[in-house]
Amino acid sequence: MEEQKSVRPLAPGDLLDGGGLDPQDWDRMRKLGHRMVDDLVTWWSSLDDRPAWQPIPGAVLERLASSVPEQPTPPEQVYEEFRRDILPYPTGNSHPTFFSHVIGTGTPLGAFSDLLAAGLNCNVFGGHQAACHVERQVIAWLASILGLPLEAGGLILSGGSMANIVALAVALRDRTDFDVRRQGLHSAKLRPRLYCSSETHNCLDKGADLLGLGSESVRRLPVDETFRLAPETLEAAIVQDRAAGWQPFCVVGNAVTVGTGAIDPLGALADVCKRHGLWLHVDGAIGAVGVLSPTLAPALVGLERADSIAFDLHKWLYVPYEAGCLLVRDVETERKAFSNATAYLSVLDAGLSSGDAWPNQLGPELSRGFKALKVWMSIKEHGVSGYRRAIETNVLQARHLGQLIEGQPALELLAPVSANIVCYRFVSKGLGGPELDTLNRRIVEELHLRGLAVPSHTFVRGHFAIRVAITNHRTRQSHIESLVAASVAIGEELLAEMRHPSEGV
Amino acid sequence: MEEQKSVRPLAPGDLLDGGGLDPQDWDRMRKLGHRMVDDLVTWWSSLDDRPAWQPIPGAVLERLASSVPEQPTPPEQVYEEFRRDILPYPTGNSHPTFFSHVIGTGTPLGAFSDLLAAGLNCNVFGGHQAACHVERQVIAWLASILGLPLEAGGLILSGGSMANIVALAVALRDRTDFDVRRQGLHSAKLRPRLYCSSETHNCLDKGADLLGLGSESVRRLPVDETFRLAPETLEAAIVQDRAAGWQPFCVVGNAVTVGTGAIDPLGALADVCKRHGLWLHVDGAIGAVGVLSPTLAPALVGLERADSIAFDLHKWLYVPYEAGCLLVRDVETERKAFSNATAYLSVLDAGLSSGDAWPNQLGPELSRGFKALKVWMSIKEHGVSGYRRAIETNVLQARHLGQLIEGQPALELLAPVSANIVCYRFVSKGLGGPELDTLNRRIVEELHLRGLAVPSHTFVRGHFAIRVAITNHRTRQSHIESLVAASVAIGEELLAEMRHPSEGV
Repeated sequence: MEEQKSVRPLAPGDLLDGGGLDPQDWDRMRKLGHRMVDDLVTWWSSLDDRPAWQPIPGAVLERLASSVPEQPTPPEQVYEEFRRDILPYPTGNSHPTFFSHVIGTGTPLGAFSDLLAAGLNCNVFGGHQAACHVERQVIAWLASILGLPLEAGGLILSGGSMANIVALAVALRDRTDFDVRRQGLHSAKLRPRLYCSSETHNCLDKGADLLGLGSESVRRLPVDETFRLAPETLEAAIVQDRAAGWQPFCVVGNAVTVGTGAIDPLGALADVCKRHGLWLHVDGAIGAVGVLSPTLAPALVGLERADSIAFDLHKWLYVPYEAGCLLVRDVETERKAFSNATAYLSVLDAGLSSGDAWPNQLGPELSRGFKALKVWMSIKEHGVSGYRRAIETNVLQARHLGQLIEGQPALELLAPVSANIVCYRFVSKGLGGPELDTLNRRIVEELHLRGLAVPSHTFVRGHFAIRVAITNHRTRQSHIESLVAASVAIGEELLAEMRHPSEGV
Repeated sequence: MEEQKSVRPLAPGDLLDGGGLDPQDWDRMRKLGHRMVDDLVTWWSSLDDRPAWQPIPGAVLERLASSVPEQPTPPEQVYEEFRRDILPYPTGNSHPTFFSHVIGTGTPLGAFSDLLAAGLNCNVFGGHQAACHVERQVIAWLASILGLPLEAGGLILSGGSMANIVALAVALRDRTDFDVRRQGLHSAKLRPRLYCSSETHNCLDKGADLLGLGSESVRRLPVDETFRLAPETLEAAIVQDRAAGWQPFCVVGNAVTVGTGAIDPLGALADVCKRHGLWLHVDGAIGAVGVLSPTLAPALVGLERADSIAFDLHKWLYVPYEAGCLLVRDVETERKAFSNATAYLSVLDAGLSSGDAWPNQLGPELSRGFKALKVWMSIKEHGVSGYRRAIETNVLQARHLGQLIEGQPALELLAPVSANIVCYRFVSKGLGGPELDTLNRRIVEELHLRGLAVPSHTFVRGHFAIRVAITNHRTRQSHIESLVAASVAIGEELLAEMRHPSEGV
């Protein structure tokens, strides 16, 4: 109390040297950083000993709903709160038996790269700074990996959704007959339309919605028995729509669909696009980098003919979240779709505001973190050869899983294994549709709740499917085999419960 | 050679246990992490001894254009390449005399938070995981700081541009009379229009363009002598446009304009919006958190009446790049604008795919990194009280700079100092428009090239302006005073060169 009394009220002048937010004691901050590194290394190297997933206790949820703190907390204590309330309840994708959605594993050097990026704290909007050149280099590396020409360019973005949306924006501006940028879609005499298979990720619908096209402008076409879009189906739809007064502008091909892992016949789609003057965009969020797998590469031939490719680096290149990429065959089409001039961002002859690398002119973002750094450091660390091996391993693991399922009478494979996604379900003689769906839904939930594995789910031709996507460099053959065994064991356990409910727990 | 020969070709089975991308030697990786922490702490604590900016040498640029490496590189060497080619050439915003654009400083614990986020590697798309709750908590904290009601919600995004674009998308869907989401802008009978001042950031035009409205749908209105939008000007434009067959839907107010730091009369704009049923969005990218400054808060009254507010946390909350925020007064309007259903993302009763926190339903992104963690740890570390002090300091520093300029005959203040942005130029009797512009442009370039300070530039009423934005917790009074002295000294030096070119270097 006495101490408080002795503090005189602040005069404005006092704050001119406010003292900032840096630590008083740098050595304490250094030690805290070391502890975080130590704890992460311990955590990464012992993931297999921990549950793949666990629920968040109520007391933690309560603390994560408390009101904003007025007073400071020592950084060491903030870190303890992180360790107590956050660390044990992550998404789980670092774990070797995480197979949910399509969420990559991350690597230690990838995480350290994000520390360096945040430490340097670059805003990669443009100008004369190394980060812009690193991003340009990474884009060139990725374009060369996917077989695009030298004049290709693009951006690192948050992920596949943003990369797909930005690609659609470029296609719309490049392949329609009105001034989208100034006059908007209201001025279109013929309504623009784009084409894709029924299996396409819903971010394309979200994109068409966001861009003002409306989701009706996405024509989702039926697939063949292997879940692929046939070129004849596509061409017929384009011809039909043109006759009906639409303005077709873009086709979206899939390089690994999110549901079952199918790969559209990209070369054949490119032929159709060429004949009709449409933009070929490939949603390669999951599978574009599959070109590095010798087993998968043949199915991806034609990818290199795309006008644009969206793909994720936090999926199958295993870099930490978040990092997606858009590549555009002719980067000038992207620049034309997004460039804009403003006094505050005009280019000078020297200093930070000089130079020829202005990524903000290629997309909607002006504030842009240094996501490219983790890609740059990771590709250097492993070399392309390291990714060839890791990606091929995941492809072979998915095939192995498919074979194990086919060899197991209690399990049914629900779609051919084309890439790194496997959809299956537990089956039992005499058990029908809705009951099977419920049983399999409960198998997924139990696998999570017991901390054994984290598959996700989808519906394949109306059936609830246990869905395994392998973009996990920590997964080993034994994990795949345990997943099959656990699926069968839990299925039989739940089946017994259903049939003899009184004996259930 | 002999060794290579002894390697037998890989059989597919070999790769089922590919070994992954983790280090063979965890202790080496741990030591590398420690070194990075040490080097960053040394760098942060000695920034004032280094140049504020320096150009990238040609040899470095060449290395940053080399082709993709096929073979792996030891992580220690990758880090050395980072230290050699990237670390010395950052944007520069960590430095105490960085005042360019509006780019915040970052903090050590903020950077460590990004390490933890990347180490855990969460994808904050939704579901039962701590990161979703941390983000929701951070959103609630920020809403309470800005005075929004409890039912407000929102998202952490990459920055102000994305937050503004998403806000416009919500406004368009909530305040127009047609089905934007399904049928698109083509189906609008009356063309939608939004209103803002001439001083508004060009990301609003980029947004209108991206959303399919077309940049013509942005009506930029003239400002008064203090660079603010008068409510009468706004109301007259709305009435006029309605009569002319437009469909007005949104007004964008500025909480600190990017050019001169003006703050629109938000309460009066809210009144106009209420009368006409329009959505009030506030672009508070720079200044919304200025409510924490006792000096600035009165000018921001009315902010709490906005339907949505976009603002950056990597600017004036000093968290590392990237983190922006969109707050929406009634989060259900945001959910209605973005929610969508898909089999692959359907919600289960237990496990990762359960729970009620699904941020992907509030915006365009599905892949989302754990940006909220650095905000959570930073707000805990400093408490709201810490930000009150740091932000107030910057406001007072800007005013002090304004006073110093007014007291210096060789400098001219080009706009009133409203917030944390100061625009000025060097002047000399008898020196006219284009010559003065060139001279001041060269002053900015020289300040950078000599590593003294990094202001940026803009044009104020047609004059080239040296522009200083202070969102820098490392800046001290002495840095402000040195900047003034250097501006005068360089100006006089360049002036002498212009007048006696033979004596120049």
